[in-house]
Amino acid sequence: MKQQAIPYKIYLDEAEMPKAWYNLRADMKNKPAPLLNPGTLQPMTAQELSGVFCDELVQQELDNDTPYFEIPEEIRSFYKMYRPSPLVRAYCLEEKLQTPAKIYYKFEGNNTSGSHKLNSAIAQAYYAKKQGLKGVTTETGAGQWGTALSMACAYLGLDCKVYMVKCSYEQKPFRREVMRTYGASVTPSPSMETEVGRKILAEHPGTTGSLGCAISEAVEKAVTSEGYRYVLGSVLNQVLLHQSVIGLETKAALDKYGVVPDIIIGCAGGGSNLGGLIAPFMGEKLRGERDYRIIAVEPASCPSFTRGKYAYDFCDTGMVCPLAKMYTLGSGFIPAPNHAGGLRYHGMSSILSQLYADGLMEARSVKQTDVFAAAEMFARVEGILPAPESSHAIRAAIDEALKCKETGEEKTIVFGLTGTGYFDMYAYEAYHDGTMQNYIPTDEEIQATLDKLPKVE
Amino acid sequence: MKQQAIPYKIYLDEAEMPKAWYNLRADMKNKPAPLLNPGTLQPMTAQELSGVFCDELVQQELDNDTPYFEIPEEIRSFYKMYRPSPLVRAYCLEEKLQTPAKIYYKFEGNNTSGSHKLNSAIAQAYYAKKQGLKGVTTETGAGQWGTALSMACAYLGLDCKVYMVKCSYEQKPFRREVMRTYGASVTPSPSMETEVGRKILAEHPGTTGSLGCAISEAVEKAVTSEGYRYVLGSVLNQVLLHQSVIGLETKAALDKYGVVPDIIIGCAGGGSNLGGLIAPFMGEKLRGERDYRIIAVEPASCPSFTRGKYAYDFCDTGMVCPLAKMYTLGSGFIPAPNHAGGLRYHGMSSILSQLYADGLMEARSVKQTDVFAAAEMFARVEGILPAPESSHAIRAAIDEALKCKETGEEKTIVFGLTGTGYFDMYAYEAYHDGTMQNYIPTDEEIQATLDKLPKVE
Repeated sequence: MKQQAIPYKIYLDEAEMPKAWYNLRADMKNKPAPLLNPGTLQPMTAQELSGVFCDELVQQELDNDTPYFEIPEEIRSFYKMYRPSPLVRAYCLEEKLQTPAKIYYKFEGNNTSGSHKLNSAIAQAYYAKKQGLKGVTTETGAGQWGTALSMACAYLGLDCKVYMVKCSYEQKPFRREVMRTYGASVTPSPSMETEVGRKILAEHPGTTGSLGCAISEAVEKAVTSEGYRYVLGSVLNQVLLHQSVIGLETKAALDKYGVVPDIIIGCAGGGSNLGGLIAPFMGEKLRGERDYRIIAVEPASCPSFTRGKYAYDFCDTGMVCPLAKMYTLGSGFIPAPNHAGGLRYHGMSSILSQLYADGLMEARSVKQTDVFAAAEMFARVEGILPAPESSHAIRAAIDEALKCKETGEEKTIVFGLTGTGYFDMYAYEAYHDGTMQNYIPTDEEIQATLDKLPKVE
Repeated sequence: MKQQAIPYKIYLDEAEMPKAWYNLRADMKNKPAPLLNPGTLQPMTAQELSGVFCDELVQQELDNDTPYFEIPEEIRSFYKMYRPSPLVRAYCLEEKLQTPAKIYYKFEGNNTSGSHKLNSAIAQAYYAKKQGLKGVTTETGAGQWGTALSMACAYLGLDCKVYMVKCSYEQKPFRREVMRTYGASVTPSPSMETEVGRKILAEHPGTTGSLGCAISEAVEKAVTSEGYRYVLGSVLNQVLLHQSVIGLETKAALDKYGVVPDIIIGCAGGGSNLGGLIAPFMGEKLRGERDYRIIAVEPASCPSFTRGKYAYDFCDTGMVCPLAKMYTLGSGFIPAPNHAGGLRYHGMSSILSQLYADGLMEARSVKQTDVFAAAEMFARVEGILPAPESSHAIRAAIDEALKCKETGEEKTIVFGLTGTGYFDMYAYEAYHDGTMQNYIPTDEEIQATLDKLPKVE
């Protein structure tokens, strides 16, 4: 075991925790494209958005200029319940790989939601409560966002209604019980509860669902129920703003030890973790202060960055939501039922899409079995059972560390370990049994849904 | 939310982590009674024990005099992977209860075994490896010990064979996959693989098993396999020695902030967590330096302290192991299938039994539904989904804090939160559904197994 001045785990003191979220958009020269009204194709106004989102969240969503938003005292107190999260030096993984690379990971799984999702859930629930609402609706893929929101709502005494992607609902029965422990109601999506759900089921009987479907249902439920608003765990600008707490803590911890990363890696579904993790680093890059390689990792079964198109598209399958400009596979794309439920979204955060289009970050896709091979190796040496989503980042981090082994370069790699895999044991079982498959969509499949992109000039 | 100089979570620096385990026995005036050879009823010699346990662990087991054992460098490195564990100030729980009491908990669940068990698993695996053994056998109840041992063995490259209590095996199918991720083999107990398993199945067809049965099978397998030894997750002196790292860290963290607890609470199955948590505090008490109230909490369905007898008994159902003097319900006692698999052992650590017999600690039993009510309240305000075992301590801590609310006393309460409940969702489901039952053995049931205690003068 190597002996180093840098501890295995770096925890910030409470006093060092971020007091404001960082809004990456303020430093972007090319701002992310605005959401469009699906009827008029004009940018959504604050007033239009306020039917769906809480008022303060609408402001955060639309603000491309304010660099910092103070974190309200109540949210900072809640953060202290489970934050700061550790920045871990992966000494054991480095030794296993026999690499000269220095690997760090920011571990967001040490809370019951099992992921970073709680960072934005408490913020969104807080503003809903502040506005005097009765409750919120949302969708969840892997179940981590739904659990996080349930926790936040239980804490604040808000009603919580979750539409859970059907294949995750079936793969992860215990997730439902965790949400129930926190008092939420959970419906498998598509459901017969909403107009859009009934329509999708009629068109695609037996569908395993998708985040896009579930979003449509949750939005419909919110706008048709008195005193409810919709909240979303990823994709949106406001979510990346809240998740900047990950990157701010990471940077503060690295700065404390004078460590400067060369490569920053995160898994990318809708972009919440990646956008949060890279925020302050990308800020430095945008301001020309320092350069970093930044890598988004996505599943080969749902490759929006690497095989999608940068275009305006619906955020949901039911096409009831505003249009967003993003790397997308088409809102009709329903990925094969891979085990990383949180990475099955057809699109990608507009912020990250713009940064990628501007060449400020890279993207790669990885196969499911390669991801689980990395997950198992990591579990054995680092003692944390990683979520399938997070394991995409592990795969890329290991691959980069192995390149360093070949070249002898002592690069510093930081990746986001977004969560734990305690509710993903069916996936691990399939991997152990050798029955896990690698679903990769054909060009024709992707083109078919891309052909249906809305026409926006 | 209260504002305090004491942070929500106290983490020691790596340099402050314990470098030696503390052997409570060295300060005990009345030493724990020795293990007896089941044939001769004479104290087990080191030579006799060495057929079952590794040599260095035998020394640790028998040593009643050496106050500190240095923690080998390799184990200290492994500890740094997941330790120090946080000592959490339960500000949110205090606020929820509106109590003047100050509540702290030492949280041992932030590793994939989900519990404190890893502290002793790595130590036992290390000594087995050092002795050049091929592998180890063990039993597991809730699955936490088995997972911990699998992790430790995977890390060191040792073979690992786990006998898992059948009711836990069935209640927690995913635990098996976690152990498999770490390369262990898992057999539901009683099994047809061993002589003692076959005998128990013949006498009690359809039994849901017990830790006592599983121990018999694991010991038989170890002593009949070349290059294997048996390891145990609780009860033994050596285990309490290793687990003292919990108490030592807790005390160091409290000392750092000048906090002196009034009450220390832990759940008690075989005694590994409680014995480890209280070690340095009990040491002060034994040396007359300071007084503490120490409370063991056990399930009403398996009340060894509160309704058992202090006598020599077999450690296992198959009666192949040495006899230990302890509070016991009789080695034939098979508790009803409550959901705290880790607290279903018929006996109790000899060290704790002697301390309890000497009036140095208290014990109480709690009903399962009351335990889950506490667990759910805790989850909602503290953001951690507790294991059913740990929730016994939560129940008692809440009860003590509510007493403080009545009296106005500002007592400082420290309890051990041994682990997380991610694999216990069937139990939470039963609680939510209102189908959870409170099994309490009748006096006749307990007397029936106590009547069969071995006759030892």
